[in-house]
Amino acid sequence: MTELFTVRTPGEAWQLFINHFQPTVRTERVATSDALDRVLAEAPIAPQDLPDFERSTVDGYAVNAADTYGASATLPAFLDVIGEVPMGQASTLTLAVGHAALVHTGGMIPAGANAVVMIENTQRVDANSIEVLKPVADGENVIHIGEDIRIGTNVLPAGRPLRPQDLGGLLALGITDVTVAIPPRVAILSTGDEVIPPDQQPQPGQIRDINSYTLAALTRRAGGLPISHGIIPDNRTALEETARRAHADAEIVVLSAGSSVSYRDMSVDVIDTLGEPGVLVHGVSVKPGKPTILAVAGGKAVFGLPGNPVSAMVIFDLFITPTIRLLLGATAPPQQQLQAKLARNVASTTGREDYVQVRLERRDDGLWAVPVFGKSNLIYTLVNAEGVVKVSLDSNGIRAGEWVTVSLH
Amino acid sequence: MTELFTVRTPGEAWQLFINHFQPTVRTERVATSDALDRVLAEAPIAPQDLPDFERSTVDGYAVNAADTYGASATLPAFLDVIGEVPMGQASTLTLAVGHAALVHTGGMIPAGANAVVMIENTQRVDANSIEVLKPVADGENVIHIGEDIRIGTNVLPAGRPLRPQDLGGLLALGITDVTVAIPPRVAILSTGDEVIPPDQQPQPGQIRDINSYTLAALTRRAGGLPISHGIIPDNRTALEETARRAHADAEIVVLSAGSSVSYRDMSVDVIDTLGEPGVLVHGVSVKPGKPTILAVAGGKAVFGLPGNPVSAMVIFDLFITPTIRLLLGATAPPQQQLQAKLARNVASTTGREDYVQVRLERRDDGLWAVPVFGKSNLIYTLVNAEGVVKVSLDSNGIRAGEWVTVSLH
Repeated sequence: MTELFTVRTPGEAWQLFINHFQPTVRTERVATSDALDRVLAEAPIAPQDLPDFERSTVDGYAVNAADTYGASATLPAFLDVIGEVPMGQASTLTLAVGHAALVHTGGMIPAGANAVVMIENTQRVDANSIEVLKPVADGENVIHIGEDIRIGTNVLPAGRPLRPQDLGGLLALGITDVTVAIPPRVAILSTGDEVIPPDQQPQPGQIRDINSYTLAALTRRAGGLPISHGIIPDNRTALEETARRAHADAEIVVLSAGSSVSYRDMSVDVIDTLGEPGVLVHGVSVKPGKPTILAVAGGKAVFGLPGNPVSAMVIFDLFITPTIRLLLGATAPPQQQLQAKLARNVASTTGREDYVQVRLERRDDGLWAVPVFGKSNLIYTLVNAEGVVKVSLDSNGIRAGEWVTVSLH
Repeated sequence: MTELFTVRTPGEAWQLFINHFQPTVRTERVATSDALDRVLAEAPIAPQDLPDFERSTVDGYAVNAADTYGASATLPAFLDVIGEVPMGQASTLTLAVGHAALVHTGGMIPAGANAVVMIENTQRVDANSIEVLKPVADGENVIHIGEDIRIGTNVLPAGRPLRPQDLGGLLALGITDVTVAIPPRVAILSTGDEVIPPDQQPQPGQIRDINSYTLAALTRRAGGLPISHGIIPDNRTALEETARRAHADAEIVVLSAGSSVSYRDMSVDVIDTLGEPGVLVHGVSVKPGKPTILAVAGGKAVFGLPGNPVSAMVIFDLFITPTIRLLLGATAPPQQQLQAKLARNVASTTGREDYVQVRLERRDDGLWAVPVFGKSNLIYTLVNAEGVVKVSLDSNGIRAGEWVTVSLH
């Protein structure tokens, strides 16, 4: 029943964990067009220049820029139109001095031309000649070979979660499949004799399982694949047997234990049977979320989360999301954060990180973060919150009116 | 070849569009556990109080608070322990004056008790009695009936994209399925004789299709279902035939036209054949993205996007994402925005909204938004950007060092 471990700061806890956890990124090949939000595992190299021919950025006439120097509306330059560059085909034209060729946006610049005069700056004289009313510089309105990306360049860094435009960048180069990280398997075990599946009618003293589903959804959001092991009756044999099965089959095991001390002690004992080095941290100076277990067993990450939903979510964000991202080899994304002014004083205690749930209120004088006061064992504390504000370890609170960073849920 | 329409500001363009577009939200029932990120279409009502019995928030002894008043370490209160409340079962105990019952975190408060003394504040005397070392107030360490949510309350508003904790809040109440919006079908047509599928080797003058894939991914991100109609040869019959098929089968039709004027004029003509009222806006004062078409045809939204990828993405964010959200009935989410200081002067023109692609740089003095200078017809301008900064209609630029809002890609 005694707590054998020292309570650690979140930073110390993560360091202890990471000292023993060697993540391996597992990879697979997928079609680039299906790779939205997947994490790139190998950095592809541009196999060609893009574009690999000179293209016009406007509708107009390809010319030799020198032929337009000094041209104006009152003193236009006269050029002979020797033809039109068809879209999607190589130009067979070659311009000599005083020549021009009609070209469309995206069309190929013909040989002998080095600039394009916009159609608005020309006037048709007859079928075979135009007046140029404005000079162009060498290279004007032309996309040069390799201007988008050069052959041999690293297209995208490994670790990048792929965005819509990244798919475009890859496909433009003909890179139609990519090596991406396989989503790590996250086993989720829920325990407690009082917990029943959500589709059943609770009897007095029973509550429906929330954490299995919330943790599964958080896992998906972080890029992992949740594997639910359901609700495990509150006895050591059942928990140990399921934990062993879960551990064999996943890269991360999450025990959402009942919240009483005896359940937690049982979790510690069961986790210690799974492999070396076993439990590394039992107790983190975070509110809510103190009774958290961090372990590494046989190279796999194992977490014991507090049973109450608010703590479980705070701890998931703090430790499990980063672990999933390690297993994805993902570089840190720009955080989804907002700056807002805190609407009420929030008290804390030095030596402890506090996570305060807030909702956002847009007022005339800007965005305000309004603390959602609700016990951390109430799921609607989270449902009513739009984000969370961290009160750092060395702070004893934040005053109303101060700017805070809100991490969005 | 002439532009028949006045160039509109983005606000005017949206207003004209919205005046003619009556979105209908189509709905379906899905399992709550599968509803992550789906948009709730009907607001469920709490069918019960949560919790529906009084629960302990700690491990300890359920007591009548009055029996502990004045208790201290030197003058403890002595209480008779009449039993233990088993987890997950109704308590059959009834406490009289001077009684206590062992209760675990989450356990039911027995009849006659109104508070729980934490186990740390008690001392066991013998098998049947304890000393209470600290008084508790009426209701202390107890979750009351309906404290999480009350029966009859609106659980969540319609229009809410469901987050992990929202699923938890619904399941806690036994709401195991929900009515959500069906993702609107977004037909994507790519045209241009120079465009070939990404898995083919371009000949001189040809480029690979980017926009079909980028727009499909943007559609998914916004909550829609992309339906690709592939690359359509650049002739009016082919475009008209495909556009008609796409229009019959989708709620939104997006034409990613070739970027030359003749293509755009053909798009306008084809869109006008699809239904009334037809093209509403042709030309928006946005850079990049001016040659944009907004239309409503037979109750469906139709957009003609500029062919270059940067413009296409800017216009998608500006008009198509909001249209998808209307068809989802989605309330506006907190935008994924950051505040940063602009690293370089950016020039603009009054009367035009400019969208400047930026990457983020974390320096010692905070976060900086560094403009990515690249032509808007280069996909790598987007690939190298992490977000976009808007220069408003009435501004002629932003100075280096000013704070700007970055909308993340």
